[in-house]
Amino acid sequence: MGFTPRRFMGAKPPKASLLLPFLLPVLLVGGQGDENAALDNVVTERMAEESHRQDSAYLLIFIMLLTLTILTIWLFKHRRFRFLHETGLAMIYGLLVGVILRFGIHVPQSMNDMVLECAVNASPATLLVNISGRFYEYTLKGEVSRGKDHQVQDDEMLRKVTFDPEVFFNILLPPIIFHAGYSLKRRHFFRNIGSILAYAFMGTVISCFVIGLIMYGFVSFMKVVGQLGGDFFFTDCLFFGAIVSATDPVTVLAIFNELKVDVDLYALLFGESVLNDAVAIVLSSSIVAYQPVGDNSHSFEAMAVLKSFGIFLGVFSGSFSLGVATGVMTALVTKFTKLRDFPLLETGLFFLMSWSTFLLAEACGMTGVVAVLFCGITQAHYTYNNLSRDSQDRTKQLFELLNFLAENFIFSYMGLTLFSFQSHVFNPMFIIGAFLAVFLGRAANIYPLSFLLNLGRRNKIGMNFQHVMMFAGLRGAMTFALSIRDTATYARQMMFSTTLLIVFFTVWICGGGTTPMLSFMSIPVGVDSDQEHSSSAVLDGSQRRSTKHESAWPFRIWYNFDHNYLKPLLTHSGPPLTATLPACCGPLARCLTSPQAYENEGPLHDDDSDFILNDANVSSMYADVTVSTDASGSRTINPKHSGAGPFNDSRDGELDPAERDLVIRGTRLVLPMDDPVEPPTTVTLPPPPSPPLSEPHRHRL
Amino acid sequence: MGFTPRRFMGAKPPKASLLLPFLLPVLLVGGQGDENAALDNVVTERMAEESHRQDSAYLLIFIMLLTLTILTIWLFKHRRFRFLHETGLAMIYGLLVGVILRFGIHVPQSMNDMVLECAVNASPATLLVNISGRFYEYTLKGEVSRGKDHQVQDDEMLRKVTFDPEVFFNILLPPIIFHAGYSLKRRHFFRNIGSILAYAFMGTVISCFVIGLIMYGFVSFMKVVGQLGGDFFFTDCLFFGAIVSATDPVTVLAIFNELKVDVDLYALLFGESVLNDAVAIVLSSSIVAYQPVGDNSHSFEAMAVLKSFGIFLGVFSGSFSLGVATGVMTALVTKFTKLRDFPLLETGLFFLMSWSTFLLAEACGMTGVVAVLFCGITQAHYTYNNLSRDSQDRTKQLFELLNFLAENFIFSYMGLTLFSFQSHVFNPMFIIGAFLAVFLGRAANIYPLSFLLNLGRRNKIGMNFQHVMMFAGLRGAMTFALSIRDTATYARQMMFSTTLLIVFFTVWICGGGTTPMLSFMSIPVGVDSDQEHSSSAVLDGSQRRSTKHESAWPFRIWYNFDHNYLKPLLTHSGPPLTATLPACCGPLARCLTSPQAYENEGPLHDDDSDFILNDANVSSMYADVTVSTDASGSRTINPKHSGAGPFNDSRDGELDPAERDLVIRGTRLVLPMDDPVEPPTTVTLPPPPSPPLSEPHRHRL
Repeated sequence: MGFTPRRFMGAKPPKASLLLPFLLPVLLVGGQGDENAALDNVVTERMAEESHRQDSAYLLIFIMLLTLTILTIWLFKHRRFRFLHETGLAMIYGLLVGVILRFGIHVPQSMNDMVLECAVNASPATLLVNISGRFYEYTLKGEVSRGKDHQVQDDEMLRKVTFDPEVFFNILLPPIIFHAGYSLKRRHFFRNIGSILAYAFMGTVISCFVIGLIMYGFVSFMKVVGQLGGDFFFTDCLFFGAIVSATDPVTVLAIFNELKVDVDLYALLFGESVLNDAVAIVLSSSIVAYQPVGDNSHSFEAMAVLKSFGIFLGVFSGSFSLGVATGVMTALVTKFTKLRDFPLLETGLFFLMSWSTFLLAEACGMTGVVAVLFCGITQAHYTYNNLSRDSQDRTKQLFELLNFLAENFIFSYMGLTLFSFQSHVFNPMFIIGAFLAVFLGRAANIYPLSFLLNLGRRNKIGMNFQHVMMFAGLRGAMTFALSIRDTATYARQMMFSTTLLIVFFTVWICGGGTTPMLSFMSIPVGVDSDQEHSSSAVLDGSQRRSTKHESAWPFRIWYNFDHNYLKPLLTHSGPPLTATLPACCGPLARCLTSPQAYENEGPLHDDDSDFILNDANVSSMYADVTVSTDASGSRTINPKHSGAGPFNDSRDGELDPAERDLVIRGTRLVLPMDDPVEPPTTVTLPPPPSPPLSEPHRHRL
Repeated sequence: MGFTPRRFMGAKPPKASLLLPFLLPVLLVGGQGDENAALDNVVTERMAEESHRQDSAYLLIFIMLLTLTILTIWLFKHRRFRFLHETGLAMIYGLLVGVILRFGIHVPQSMNDMVLECAVNASPATLLVNISGRFYEYTLKGEVSRGKDHQVQDDEMLRKVTFDPEVFFNILLPPIIFHAGYSLKRRHFFRNIGSILAYAFMGTVISCFVIGLIMYGFVSFMKVVGQLGGDFFFTDCLFFGAIVSATDPVTVLAIFNELKVDVDLYALLFGESVLNDAVAIVLSSSIVAYQPVGDNSHSFEAMAVLKSFGIFLGVFSGSFSLGVATGVMTALVTKFTKLRDFPLLETGLFFLMSWSTFLLAEACGMTGVVAVLFCGITQAHYTYNNLSRDSQDRTKQLFELLNFLAENFIFSYMGLTLFSFQSHVFNPMFIIGAFLAVFLGRAANIYPLSFLLNLGRRNKIGMNFQHVMMFAGLRGAMTFALSIRDTATYARQMMFSTTLLIVFFTVWICGGGTTPMLSFMSIPVGVDSDQEHSSSAVLDGSQRRSTKHESAWPFRIWYNFDHNYLKPLLTHSGPPLTATLPACCGPLARCLTSPQAYENEGPLHDDDSDFILNDANVSSMYADVTVSTDASGSRTINPKHSGAGPFNDSRDGELDPAERDLVIRGTRLVLPMDDPVEPPTTVTLPPPPSPPLSEPHRHRL
């Protein structure tokens, strides 16, 4: 009987019983003999091969897209265009390719995507199919949009280009979020931690509810007017509020970093947007968990709200502790083994442990992305100090690259989905409402909270800062990933389409407008760390000293605890535990303190100087201090990497430690110095500092 | 009607008609109303979540396994154990976890893997299922082993732990193979290229046919004796020969590298095993392509053989040219853009272009792994020279890490499959035959070919070298990946089980025995590059000069062409094209030559010195020359990275270029030198060279 592709493409959901006549012959056909089976086997293999070939081609499209993006980014950087960020660029390319795929390419009819059909009463994750007496396993891919009888082939192609949304959550987001945690500038972050937590937690919740309520108003109005084509419950509105409240750390902050905007503004925005993402994930999943309590439970119910709140707390704290736990474990392993002798092993371990956080959290029913964020922060705070310099470079470069690729992939994919996604619901009224709600939600987050925070803060958050924070609350990767995760219902499809537009708008318009905005708000650009104090004067004329201990007493207690006990326990730095622990713990303390701690005790400024700041070392510790050569050719070298996180914003930090050490060794030939960090200005070096070697590293990314 | 898990687990392939009564109620059930659908939807979502959670847990097992392996590797390196390589270790851990999963853990009956069943007459790649009036898409996962009525749950778990074999080909192998190409020591490789090609191409084909014939004899005998439980054709024997002929570059060569064995032996073994893999892949797919010509075509047929040979040539040359083409393209892009100012972009581009080779080849129906190998070689030969130093480090570290992780993953997975794979066919007679055949096949490759090669070679390949090459022909990742790719038939299952044993045996016994073997064969260990000539004396007393131009005239023509035209065209090094091209091409040549080429023309030894060797610079160019400090504290610095591939075997090469440059700058303060490479021995540096900085880099991996 051979193999003939049967095409029972289901038109408008037919009654299942209608399928019976089609299925009967199929059922009676089994077990026709071995040679047929063998031939079928070969055909199946061919088909699988063909499908693999197509998949490769589709993936190739994305790789080419990314390559193109990279080349254009280079051109932009080279020509110093600033009006469009690389993520905006990636989206434009994605859009173009989406248009081409949608309208330009038509796949010819072929047998390779034969669709068979049978009817059962539930959608199990696994399906066994009896084919000529052999059993094949099928896995659930998702629901197919109904009512598309025509252009099946093209739809098939577009569907193939559209990835499984879980790819975003399980593959693309983790490196981005880990990188955000790992590259957090911890000094500025911890200095503003109170405000950041307020914006991230309270602000996001406020924004979520404000947006939810406004949207509920709009949706109710649309129902009255008859503009709504399907169900849209209050929980859907809240869900929309949750996913749209996550601001994106990528775009604006890259710009801020490049422009060297005020460090406190940077810390506030970056810290908020990173923690934001975590809050939004957990918030949205709590809202989803709220939904199916009863059968028609889309109304408000006190118990269910409490339960959702409980879920929120449980998931958040669970993910938090998992992330911190793996971070601490990695720190202990790297401290107590001599793994640092083998950078490859060390980097491998670091990578695997960080990844396992994600998997562990997912396996426990927690949120992997949130766990990964806190794992990243812990790794940067403790483990990073234990790594060999080689591994420090390797890990930061690795995650930088992964982050870069994942980020650009997501943004070009966003552009692509505008045309490749097949169930868009663009409702003009909903879109207008959403834009308004997003704007108001952001305002309800920033202005009232800033007012409240300013009551407690010694260096106030000025109005110009507030305006910029309002303006720079872009929506990006996380919002997109949350909205594409589930596009089964009408409400979700409308949300997805609207979210896409919001992301486009904020990235292109707000992202592109950030630089003019900054100058309009007279926020100083090009602030070097040394001028930090002059820039802090912008903060409503507070005194110099106030920049230091902004944070409240619970944070200061934590700093002391961290400095005295955790740092010495988990890293090689800090005061030895023998000095900080009570005498009774002597043997334990000796056993846990690394020999380096005794040596370091005196001169070395370790990471905890991030927190316990005193006026004297502020300028010498800041990350951006560079090798500077003045006009007379004399050279002053300040330590790099001393008190800063793993990712300083200056890329040229890489060779310099070696350089420093060696120039020092060189100068020692002439004039041995007591203080190796500051060679005397009397030693004249060849006037051009070091063009051939460090020149390529000078440029920033 | 709610949702009740239905378990129609197919016992011993039943007649399809038997399923009818089960299917009928299912078919008649569709369209029961919306609330049921919504509830089903929630349940489906829950199940998908549960399944995702399990997947995370299973992946976590592997990550933990790798972490454990890393820690043990460190312990072994720390304690200087040599008898077991890390890959052997990974296999042991895999075995242990396999035993635990198989016998220790029993998954309780739960609803999360409900299996439904319906019968159709072919196994399409996509299946549409009508569930209560909604359409769900299912994708083919593979055939399920029959006749397993019991312990469905445990089987389910074991099956989940067993990855899709395509994962190996599409995710794990490419980085390994690319790394092999990228880290090829090109100088030694090209010096022995004639012999390497002979071993890799002719040798693998010989070995394939010898093994195939021997196995055919064994199988025929087994058929007579009645030991065979299924079909086993001649093509199956040849296929077995092809997959078992691929020797593994990983294990032994890591040992060789660590022990610093004779460089020519190293080059021969490494080069052979790398190209070997490519040949074996293409050979095996050609044999598979031979099979389905007619219906009962498992006999020998001249036309089909020719066709297979044509496929072999086509696929090999196609993959080769694709790989080289993308490599050349990357070289051109990196040469003519100023991308080197942004190492992150550069690294990203490099990574994406290398990956796109794989996808492009797969999309064109070529072999991605082979393309990636030649892409790696091209990238190392041309593109590497154009990269900024930062990117050079980043790329090599990135691929080193990917290689390390993928390699250990594959080997621990191998250990695991011994217990988790459910269709093992261990046939003692077949296994004995296979071991014998593998041994004889290797012998038929090495000894006759060495004899023939020695007729043409000026420095002969000594008998001790031949014995070591015979002994060190381990089977590893590639053999495993090829054999697990298809385990549908009885023959393939038997092959897979046998292959697994062969891999275990060779990695543990041969891999562990390499060190004793080397000393038994009196092959010098710990050979430093400077002693190369003394070690080459081992090669049957040939003269010193003969080491240089071993290769025949076609290779020398290629060297000249490469040096005069390709290098200047694709990189910044080499003589300017204006000097090498005829005068008529003047304008074109000027436009294609980079400004650096003119500067470099004189003193700089670029990469092409890999090939055009003269006595004077042999020792100064060799990759292993290190900064050496003699007893008097004077220091001699020889250039690093000058003529060697991106991955020198010394890890400490990383900081040294900067170090060198800076020490030189330092010494210039005292005594400006004309030749910056050799600072005068009169300059006394502080006696301990530089312990704190470069100490962790001294250790080798």
